[in-house]
Amino acid sequence: MADFNTLDYRVEDGIAIATFNRPDKMNPFNVAMTQDLIALFDRTDGDDDVRAVVLTGSGRAFCAGADLGGGEKTFDYKPGGRGGDVDVNGVRRDGGGRVTLRIFRSLKPVIAAVNGAAVGVGATMQLPMDARLASVDARFGFVFARRGITPEACSSWFLPRLVGMPRALEWVYSGRVFGAEEALEAGLVQSLHQPEELLDAAVALAHRMTDDSAPVSVALSRRMMWQSLGAPHPMHVHRIDSRAIQSRGKSNDAREGIASFMEKRPAQYPDRVSSDMPDFYPDSDEPEFI
Amino acid sequence: MADFNTLDYRVEDGIAIATFNRPDKMNPFNVAMTQDLIALFDRTDGDDDVRAVVLTGSGRAFCAGADLGGGEKTFDYKPGGRGGDVDVNGVRRDGGGRVTLRIFRSLKPVIAAVNGAAVGVGATMQLPMDARLASVDARFGFVFARRGITPEACSSWFLPRLVGMPRALEWVYSGRVFGAEEALEAGLVQSLHQPEELLDAAVALAHRMTDDSAPVSVALSRRMMWQSLGAPHPMHVHRIDSRAIQSRGKSNDAREGIASFMEKRPAQYPDRVSSDMPDFYPDSDEPEFI
Amino acid sequence: MADFNTLDYRVEDGIAIATFNRPDKMNPFNVAMTQDLIALFDRTDGDDDVRAVVLTGSGRAFCAGADLGGGEKTFDYKPGGRGGDVDVNGVRRDGGGRVTLRIFRSLKPVIAAVNGAAVGVGATMQLPMDARLASVDARFGFVFARRGITPEACSSWFLPRLVGMPRALEWVYSGRVFGAEEALEAGLVQSLHQPEELLDAAVALAHRMTDDSAPVSVALSRRMMWQSLGAPHPMHVHRIDSRAIQSRGKSNDAREGIASFMEKRPAQYPDRVSSDMPDFYPDSDEPEFI
Repeated sequence: MADFNTLDYRVEDGIAIATFNRPDKMNPFNVAMTQDLIALFDRTDGDDDVRAVVLTGSGRAFCAGADLGGGEKTFDYKPGGRGGDVDVNGVRRDGGGRVTLRIFRSLKPVIAAVNGAAVGVGATMQLPMDARLASVDARFGFVFARRGITPEACSSWFLPRLVGMPRALEWVYSGRVFGAEEALEAGLVQSLHQPEELLDAAVALAHRMTDDSAPVSVALSRRMMWQSLGAPHPMHVHRIDSRAIQSRGKSNDAREGIASFMEKRPAQYPDRVSSDMPDFYPDSDEPEFI
Repeated sequence: MADFNTLDYRVEDGIAIATFNRPDKMNPFNVAMTQDLIALFDRTDGDDDVRAVVLTGSGRAFCAGADLGGGEKTFDYKPGGRGGDVDVNGVRRDGGGRVTLRIFRSLKPVIAAVNGAAVGVGATMQLPMDARLASVDARFGFVFARRGITPEACSSWFLPRLVGMPRALEWVYSGRVFGAEEALEAGLVQSLHQPEELLDAAVALAHRMTDDSAPVSVALSRRMMWQSLGAPHPMHVHRIDSRAIQSRGKSNDAREGIASFMEKRPAQYPDRVSSDMPDFYPDSDEPEFI
Repeated sequence: MADFNTLDYRVEDGIAIATFNRPDKMNPFNVAMTQDLIALFDRTDGDDDVRAVVLTGSGRAFCAGADLGGGEKTFDYKPGGRGGDVDVNGVRRDGGGRVTLRIFRSLKPVIAAVNGAAVGVGATMQLPMDARLASVDARFGFVFARRGITPEACSSWFLPRLVGMPRALEWVYSGRVFGAEEALEAGLVQSLHQPEELLDAAVALAHRMTDDSAPVSVALSRRMMWQSLGAPHPMHVHRIDSRAIQSRGKSNDAREGIASFMEKRPAQYPDRVSSDMPDFYPDSDEPEFI
């Protein structure tokens, strides 16, 4: 696949599998990976043959964080110095945040298969994914305070919502690296697996999430669930719910969903994410960067 | 009780018990139930003899979801086709959402006693309730994606706040039906009971919540807790807290609360929800449907 | 320490330890304690020798709540009657809320060492702290509904985010007092300890949170995490993240953090909270009281 530089990409039986492909460097996060990850979710959103996405790493690491090859100035982003980031009003948008905001808007479920070290942005990029499965060898670290910087990639929004404030705070303040068992106990990961069984388990979960479900329903559900997580009042959600039910209730998918249920047979949903999404979640619904 | 069509209603020792009464149809959700549920909480809010509300079902189901008797067009809501819903700006307000928003504003604690199947809106209507107790025979399903539609009743707001995102997403994407044990383990229900002991357990919890507490305090607490769940900053809550303490601190309830505590005797709170609620939570505090 | 009336204060090896010092009265909350607590966090924020704060009580109680010495009119706050509170537009700001909002903005991690009874505001003042460690003898009560008043100190915002809605609601409705085991099981406290080991455990946690971390990184992380907890969309956090990384990425702390990591030696961070905080979290970022 010539389209991506930092990851290998394949689709098997409806599940896209993206694998970071720089094991010698522990799959470092850099401008190319930022661009690839944004392009990855543009591709999977646009491909009706993809029902869900699994992201994993090759070698000993999932992603060991920012490439420190730049030395002490690694995080000193000069204008123009990192093509993957974008200047707005004199502020360089954090590349990790651009990735997690893109995942936040994904129309397909996203699962991390954490094969090894996930440190810094290698940990924070996972937080807007729908599930994290981990190898027993995985380890995690929100190490920013030990590098003299701060949490990024919107992780201060996602992490407390996943594991609760006391745990999130202790991890972020201390910056310490911890193992898969602690991640499981805290709810950061949903299950542990032997290394050789990890990818199969992630793919099986992807199938469980999507095999019997209408693709447009799943896409809308994903946006509704993640958007609602910050909504200040359920009325905001009621406005969307009402439109979603009105729109989908008269769809061919709904007719097939009801008919197949009444006839006790598998459903064959006709609608497609590429053509049949309603318009109340335009791409522009993301608040502006100011 | 002639007032309700789809549920039986009685008040015993301060606890209102509402029981869905169409066991032959598995207590289907329809326009009449929408109207009954909104009227139910109007009644319990207005009746000072009611301290808390327990909602349960008769027969094998709590509520098996929308009545699919309409066949493939069940969710194709034509204007005028369902009297229980309301058109606003050309959008038909989701009936499930009208119910859950009404429960959200209830002035009395609400407990679900989930006696059996709770599927679709039968599951989502429970989410703004204060506790869910379940029979070991209960089962749950957020089945929308298997019917070609989407989550409704503001469930994408409530569900992740109850069980966390990974669990909520897997249930909503897959649409699969799951049992009481899984619901307990996830925190969706607070305790499991033998079928014949379920209602007593729910009523006992209702008494534990209210027997020693001032009714106005409980009503205000309920609104404060649920409203605060979405507030973007604790300052928003401080504005309400300050008014609530100022208002209730000088009340006869506060004098009785302190006196009974100092005298180590049960309290007899004089204030009533029907007449003594302060005015900083007007009925109109709900954001508009737009 | 002449500066505080209701607590003793000392700093040991970078950890400030504040101890409520009215054991004969079970460390009652009053105007003097309100003023002391606000002054305490002003002091710890301004003292670069303080890395974290531990708050505990002397005697049998952590803080047994409002001083009921005023009798039945304890909560009937007349204008001018309590110097610690502030009138704004005819509304007296709740003193507990002024304390928790101050802790919310603390630049240093804050740990409660709950040595005994923590009732009313003695419980709610702990909620914006970063961790709560408890003696096996501790007990907790959100007793407001049994005194005829309501939750305060922004507790309806903090409590459900810590322990989930069902648990928070049952505690607040019932107003019952419960023990340390229940608090641990619910996640209100993070660990239990024998009384004589409690303070050491809290201090050890404070060191674990801060010993290897850059002070400015910890201060920024604290504000980012607590502010983000209510943010309605991750974009709001991305705006801050981007500025934080841009600001800290070029700092001397970042250079030292990377260099020490590459050289596998302990870091010596040069930047100070008193002088090197960026300006995108001004003191005035708190919404107004209206």
